[in-house]
Amino acid sequence: MFFEGPEKKVELVVEGAPSLRQLGEAFWRRVVVASGAQILSQIHSDDCDAYLLSESSLFVYDARVIMITCGQTTLAKAAELMMGALEDHTLALMIYERKNEHFPEYQHTAFIDDARTLHALAPGRALRFGAPDSHRLMLFHTDAPYTPAAGDVTLEVLMHGISAEAAARFHAVPNATPEGVAARTGIADMLPGFTLDEHLFEPAGYSLNGLNGAAYATIHVTPEAIGSYVSFETNLDFRADPSRLIRQVVGIFEPASFDVITFSPAPITAPDLPAHRLRNHVEQILDCGYHVAFRHYYRPQTRPGRAFALPL
Amino acid sequence: MFFEGPEKKVELVVEGAPSLRQLGEAFWRRVVVASGAQILSQIHSDDCDAYLLSESSLFVYDARVIMITCGQTTLAKAAELMMGALEDHTLALMIYERKNEHFPEYQHTAFIDDARTLHALAPGRALRFGAPDSHRLMLFHTDAPYTPAAGDVTLEVLMHGISAEAAARFHAVPNATPEGVAARTGIADMLPGFTLDEHLFEPAGYSLNGLNGAAYATIHVTPEAIGSYVSFETNLDFRADPSRLIRQVVGIFEPASFDVITFSPAPITAPDLPAHRLRNHVEQILDCGYHVAFRHYYRPQTRPGRAFALPL
Repeated sequence: MFFEGPEKKVELVVEGAPSLRQLGEAFWRRVVVASGAQILSQIHSDDCDAYLLSESSLFVYDARVIMITCGQTTLAKAAELMMGALEDHTLALMIYERKNEHFPEYQHTAFIDDARTLHALAPGRALRFGAPDSHRLMLFHTDAPYTPAAGDVTLEVLMHGISAEAAARFHAVPNATPEGVAARTGIADMLPGFTLDEHLFEPAGYSLNGLNGAAYATIHVTPEAIGSYVSFETNLDFRADPSRLIRQVVGIFEPASFDVITFSPAPITAPDLPAHRLRNHVEQILDCGYHVAFRHYYRPQTRPGRAFALPL
Repeated sequence: MFFEGPEKKVELVVEGAPSLRQLGEAFWRRVVVASGAQILSQIHSDDCDAYLLSESSLFVYDARVIMITCGQTTLAKAAELMMGALEDHTLALMIYERKNEHFPEYQHTAFIDDARTLHALAPGRALRFGAPDSHRLMLFHTDAPYTPAAGDVTLEVLMHGISAEAAARFHAVPNATPEGVAARTGIADMLPGFTLDEHLFEPAGYSLNGLNGAAYATIHVTPEAIGSYVSFETNLDFRADPSRLIRQVVGIFEPASFDVITFSPAPITAPDLPAHRLRNHVEQILDCGYHVAFRHYYRPQTRPGRAFALPL
């Protein structure tokens, strides 16, 4: 009846360790299985192996891994498995995130459980960006000193309540090839020069990984009527125009509300999104060096809505 | 570490049945126990028996019962017990509500489970007022024809993120008598002519029932830092000035956001709350005759916030 789109994410950085890519596909497959997902396909660049998963994505670099999973996955278990494979003292950074779920009652663990599991392996702090009754990002990070590189930025745009027109483009139809979707919807235009790996799910849903050298981008679409959701994430350096990518992706999906989350080594300019209202804005410098900004936007209502009928 | 303030509520109306009050205190005690709560105290008027509970309130009239419970209570079980005590064909109306919880993962059931349980006993419909990623009220109602009386109105003001100053007034302190709280905080001024029944909880929390003839009012305060919440509900006829009570109670608790929910036999004037922004507005006429309006307001942010540290 619904699918839990809002994701968990883990990011690990190692220093003085062998290349994480050389742990091999069989190892990363075990990591993915530990989360409860499967590898569907993969693409590669000189810098990164990008795996498209049955529930989201995995990006493996020599010294960094980014894994994002949705649904009822158990990403903390995958993070534990990764950490168990690292030699002592090579973990430089870990950040574990959970976006507020639509139906947390169907998750195997709560964020605080995951954070405590990870804290026992690598000490850190747990933070909530946003209010407990609204959009929020829960974040655990190791508190060992770490200095992000000058170009180390991440942009996340997490969208709720996409328009019916946008949702319709991401339902599987007979003879549809996933390759057409990015081109038809404008997603490909957002990511010039990227190699794309796309998947359309039955009966609904769409995932995309993109690689362009060291740059990654990923989109995951949950178009179901109850709890529709889309995430977009990239490490492309968006700082020259912090609004462009956000406006593009919000223009494609027309969400009723969305969160913009940025990680950067120093404060950055706020995005300019005049069609939306800023509901909440949280800024925090993490002990591990990142400046994190969380902004929750919504599209103002033009007329009263109706109640949504739930099937009994 | 936290207490789940957001409530469940059930309202039952009978026609052609013996007085519900004459089912007796022992019966109502069993109903309360079925929800997982206890009766703490009671007050009475000619029209109503009002029970203050360990988790919220129960109001019993001759032909109507309103029961509100918070925490991890199982109110649908209490509703089942009530319905089992009714003679055939005397149930005229049932409405069951659940406000979005802060931590639904710690509830025994989800709303849809409760709605299906009740639907099997008395057919109806389930509705969601609000979006699945924001403030919302889930509501099940019987769909048998029903015509609310001209004066049959309800006002609910459900407040999240109350100010630290307001919260501090509702922590138990040595030698504090609950009777002082309503007078000190301005609550008593809101409810002139009401007999009040108050309770301060250890280490924190406050409940109040008030009766004035057939009018009831109730307030429940969860002042804990994680997920602070206050509910105010009354059947006082607020239609002559739909803003006054809302402004008073919001002025006392200074919430970051709140929902105003009204039930009435016909459309009513919108409240005028210029200090707050209307985030979402849903209007729906139920098959059982009530006009229901749901409005979610928030206080605009004046500067960026900081992340909230969660204890590990």
